[in-house]
Amino acid sequence: MTSAGTRQNPDSRPAHARESASQAGELARRIRERDWRALAKAITIIENGSPEAAELCAALFPHTGHARVIGITGPPGSGKSTLVDALTGVIRKDGRTVSVIAVDPSSPFTGGAVLGDRVRMQRHAGDPGVFIRSMAARQAAGGLAPATRDVIRALDAFGSDVIVVETVGVGQVELDVMKVADTVIVVTVPGLGDGVQTIKAGLVEIADCFVVNMADRPGAAQSVADLKTMLTLGGAEERRRRWVPPVLETVALTGQGVEAVWEACERHHRVLEQDERMGRVRERLRQEVVESVSRAIVGRVEDALRENGALEGVLGAVMRREIDPRSAAELIVSQYLRR
Amino acid sequence: MTSAGTRQNPDSRPAHARESASQAGELARRIRERDWRALAKAITIIENGSPEAAELCAALFPHTGHARVIGITGPPGSGKSTLVDALTGVIRKDGRTVSVIAVDPSSPFTGGAVLGDRVRMQRHAGDPGVFIRSMAARQAAGGLAPATRDVIRALDAFGSDVIVVETVGVGQVELDVMKVADTVIVVTVPGLGDGVQTIKAGLVEIADCFVVNMADRPGAAQSVADLKTMLTLGGAEERRRRWVPPVLETVALTGQGVEAVWEACERHHRVLEQDERMGRVRERLRQEVVESVSRAIVGRVEDALRENGALEGVLGAVMRREIDPRSAAELIVSQYLRR
Repeated sequence: MTSAGTRQNPDSRPAHARESASQAGELARRIRERDWRALAKAITIIENGSPEAAELCAALFPHTGHARVIGITGPPGSGKSTLVDALTGVIRKDGRTVSVIAVDPSSPFTGGAVLGDRVRMQRHAGDPGVFIRSMAARQAAGGLAPATRDVIRALDAFGSDVIVVETVGVGQVELDVMKVADTVIVVTVPGLGDGVQTIKAGLVEIADCFVVNMADRPGAAQSVADLKTMLTLGGAEERRRRWVPPVLETVALTGQGVEAVWEACERHHRVLEQDERMGRVRERLRQEVVESVSRAIVGRVEDALRENGALEGVLGAVMRREIDPRSAAELIVSQYLRR
Repeated sequence: MTSAGTRQNPDSRPAHARESASQAGELARRIRERDWRALAKAITIIENGSPEAAELCAALFPHTGHARVIGITGPPGSGKSTLVDALTGVIRKDGRTVSVIAVDPSSPFTGGAVLGDRVRMQRHAGDPGVFIRSMAARQAAGGLAPATRDVIRALDAFGSDVIVVETVGVGQVELDVMKVADTVIVVTVPGLGDGVQTIKAGLVEIADCFVVNMADRPGAAQSVADLKTMLTLGGAEERRRRWVPPVLETVALTGQGVEAVWEACERHHRVLEQDERMGRVRERLRQEVVESVSRAIVGRVEDALRENGALEGVLGAVMRREIDPRSAAELIVSQYLRR
């Protein structure tokens, strides 16, 4: 219903599209009433990039903007999942509802093991204020970072106060996923080679808090010292003047130090002024609109090229090596774009 | 020079563009005269995605289409590099010139070790008919697969008879890179878990030849049998009726069986009829033009969005949650595209 109001010509849409929109509206309504099965269904729709995903996201969007998103990342073996579980307990004690998304950007071919949601759920079994779900790269048709963003919105509309996004793998996707977070926690452990070296360069720049987990192991103090040194080296950036990321020690298995991690998140939230938070939200939405524009245009142009004969004519010249592919593309582009 | 002939209004270009085109033409001319330093410079320009790369590729393109491209891929530890070195020797004995590109699509953050070109060159030191070069993901601004394609064209214009593309890493990029090859060789070894399981699903489909390397190890016969069984299972596709990928055994370190690999490449080349080869080339060029069109349009639209105020107005409505980002994007798209 809500999404229909934002469309220009709702009546011009074919019957199946109107039906899909009304189904999306119904699903969105059930999600807002904290219907778990509706939420699970919505997440599957988003993951699969099903046709109804766009309608669903449009229906959910007006009811988002409430949740805080905490991103947790770090090298494999740093105990992220255990930390997330402990942190979830702490946030619950604070009276907030929590959702956890474990994002596994493993190659679609390796089909990396997704954490057993059922196993992880056990710790919070019977607590209706906790929702846990895994997402794997091979499921997300339109890219893992956009799918994660849409799943976060579903959890937000569901009424989650805090959404924890945990990335399991490493690489560019991890970094992209972390960009959806309001507060980014980077986890490392003593003894994983040089603690600082194991943290990817791009992650250090977006980190709002560092956690040295398994701090009862030898070398923890050194890891903390290394991270603090690194922060003073890169401390010239403007945002680092307002907020210097704390370096905390935890033993997630026993819960030691985990409350301090949540306190750091709270402090980070308060220190970021309202203006700056809104600025970040605006910048993220701007990026999302620009990316959506690009994706939509590419889709339409590729469809059009398949249908009309413009490509075939140019392709003959390319085959005869009379014109190179890039110049051929420029010729075609000029036919599609209004200057 | 040659590229200028394919342009519509060469004189309307600004002076610096004409100069860049003439420099590109000069570099292309030197490459065709087998000037190694010109070739190395061209590859660096392509890798870095420098502004002159497009002019250079346009200048090279008319002089391409001669070389055969052999792709070699497989799991880490399967001895691909040793096989490539041995194969290079065999192809040289056959009187053809060879270029090798080792593509390492490791994460830009891990900065995966690129094979030491100098070390690898030693085996063929002093042979002007061999050129070896590594490419790493972090260097290729516009994506590794497109950069590889352009480097292949430079090597083709340089006069390489055979270009061997070896991928070092694993994942989607590996698969994309292999799509540039006329013949794809997938390498595995006995004992790497189940030999068949270690080969990524997408690679099996594009493989034209399987090699069980280190075939003096226990389990080689079983790996060969497993691969042959797998091929009979997936043998229903049309292209598999004309060409059933052979499963060969090699000990690359001693050269055992490597001549048979080159013979298989030759046989594959002969069996693929001229029509089918041209069909593959056409399909690849079509994809390249379509991708170039998309990239060019996205680039221009993003530039335009940055410059004009269209985005800001829509973004306000998105911030107020009156319209969702996807619907906002649709509104903007309709302003840019001719239907």
